[in-house]
Amino acid sequence: MKVWVTGANGFIGRHLVRVLADRGYSVHGIGHGAIGDAERHHSGLAHWLNGEIDAANLNALAERTGLPSTIFHLAGGSSVGLSLAQPFEDFSRTVAGTARLLEWLRGTARDCRLIAVSSAAVYGAGHEGAIAVDAATLPMSPYGQHKLMMEQLCRSYAVSFSLRSTVVRLFSVYGPNLRKQLPWDICSRLQAGERTLVLGGTGAEVRDWTDVRDVARLLAVIDGKPQAEAFQAINAGSGFGTTVARVSARIAECWGGTISVQFSGIVRAGDPTSLLSDDAMRRTLPFDWRIPVEQGLGDYVSWFKDQIR
Amino acid sequence: MKVWVTGANGFIGRHLVRVLADRGYSVHGIGHGAIGDAERHHSGLAHWLNGEIDAANLNALAERTGLPSTIFHLAGGSSVGLSLAQPFEDFSRTVAGTARLLEWLRGTARDCRLIAVSSAAVYGAGHEGAIAVDAATLPMSPYGQHKLMMEQLCRSYAVSFSLRSTVVRLFSVYGPNLRKQLPWDICSRLQAGERTLVLGGTGAEVRDWTDVRDVARLLAVIDGKPQAEAFQAINAGSGFGTTVARVSARIAECWGGTISVQFSGIVRAGDPTSLLSDDAMRRTLPFDWRIPVEQGLGDYVSWFKDQIR
Repeated sequence: MKVWVTGANGFIGRHLVRVLADRGYSVHGIGHGAIGDAERHHSGLAHWLNGEIDAANLNALAERTGLPSTIFHLAGGSSVGLSLAQPFEDFSRTVAGTARLLEWLRGTARDCRLIAVSSAAVYGAGHEGAIAVDAATLPMSPYGQHKLMMEQLCRSYAVSFSLRSTVVRLFSVYGPNLRKQLPWDICSRLQAGERTLVLGGTGAEVRDWTDVRDVARLLAVIDGKPQAEAFQAINAGSGFGTTVARVSARIAECWGGTISVQFSGIVRAGDPTSLLSDDAMRRTLPFDWRIPVEQGLGDYVSWFKDQIR
Repeated sequence: MKVWVTGANGFIGRHLVRVLADRGYSVHGIGHGAIGDAERHHSGLAHWLNGEIDAANLNALAERTGLPSTIFHLAGGSSVGLSLAQPFEDFSRTVAGTARLLEWLRGTARDCRLIAVSSAAVYGAGHEGAIAVDAATLPMSPYGQHKLMMEQLCRSYAVSFSLRSTVVRLFSVYGPNLRKQLPWDICSRLQAGERTLVLGGTGAEVRDWTDVRDVARLLAVIDGKPQAEAFQAINAGSGFGTTVARVSARIAECWGGTISVQFSGIVRAGDPTSLLSDDAMRRTLPFDWRIPVEQGLGDYVSWFKDQIR
């Protein structure tokens, strides 16, 4: 089985490549970032093309590896903050990059399946409780808006050109190698010696935390099941919500020592009070979440302390 | 009053430039197409930059004219058929072009208002009766999908960066200078000597036909009324539906002679049976539709016969 991973050098991409290589797949990657030969070999990547997702580079990769049966499309903007600082850059990565990829598939690899990673940010801030995959979408940041546009491009190429694609809406993914967002911020501040942490928001914000190792396995499972329709969307959360306060407390507990976590009460405009997936996905896929958030955060703190040694 | 019109060389653009120039505005344009000095002067355009909508060209135009108070954004893909033949080209014109324009506004002309022309194609095929502006959107062609994405970019820059924009969803616009779509096809076939026309579809398809001269005036009226919110969408149909069979019969009647119009009954996949605007817009804007479809189609046939002489 030959597959490609765009953005294979990113946080989720590295975990996914490992899972796929361990299953015996021939895994090739394209995206930004220098990866030396030794590192590439160790990562499980047979080929790596360091460059933009465009027709010339996709053709170059195809010449080396042949056409893939599936492309896992992980390349794209990766943070709400960056999308606010540089919205056009986020648009280029997420939307224009996907448009070029779909057009290349239409011309060159029509039988290839696309599994594109999207985000719960497409739902916006107006939801309470578990969110179904057909809930209203009203993204509040350029990041979420561009992810929604990426999904729409996938749907459009499925409807008009029968290209098969699955968009997978990830929720709050954390785990080893995550070098941004709440768990990273808290660990970094603890590492710097802070013992009284004042965090933004109220602490009551609910998120659906999923360990990246589970998420990588889920993406491989999705690839293993043929899709019935040309286009499908999947809510890839656990259905289990944990507050930011609880996550912060757990990280502090795993870190050890006397740590006080407080909240400023200042809520960032557009920040949802709750982003929680329903668990409909588990009824259609042979997949179970294995890493509870308490354990996953423990592993994260261990990884953090290891990597700064 | 200084305004810019993107796509000023297009079907609607030329009518809009005339209306704005007649109101005494200083009108400048950017987009594709060669316009000679005499033609430009005659059209009402003070400056014309023949080129892509990108930062370099927008800066070049700003150096010549200063910054505008409003940009009418008409550049973009212009047909469902072309969007199916060349979806990436349609994406580039409609979506990527708008992304570059919004980013340029964010950096260079934050006080400029954007009035962007969208399409009823964003609604897709699932609607019956009059469509409200907040109805569900499910476009069935790359053209409609890309127009929706253009709207979403406008909304995103309004939400995140307070750029003011109005998207105006046009319905079935026809009138002098239209060189495509149903009225043009029928006249062209009559001109070629056909007297028994077999058209696609059933003839019962309902459309909200609006004369381009009314539409151009409407766009100017929209510019005249400050918008209350950073983002707004307007349904720019008349609320008056006419079947394709009736439109065809009226064109044949105006053409003269014995003409038979028949329908194949073969419906193009995704083609809506009805695309009809509600008339909510008339309650908020000082605007009335002046050209009934029977009269407008008569004028169209006269124009067609004049221009082929």
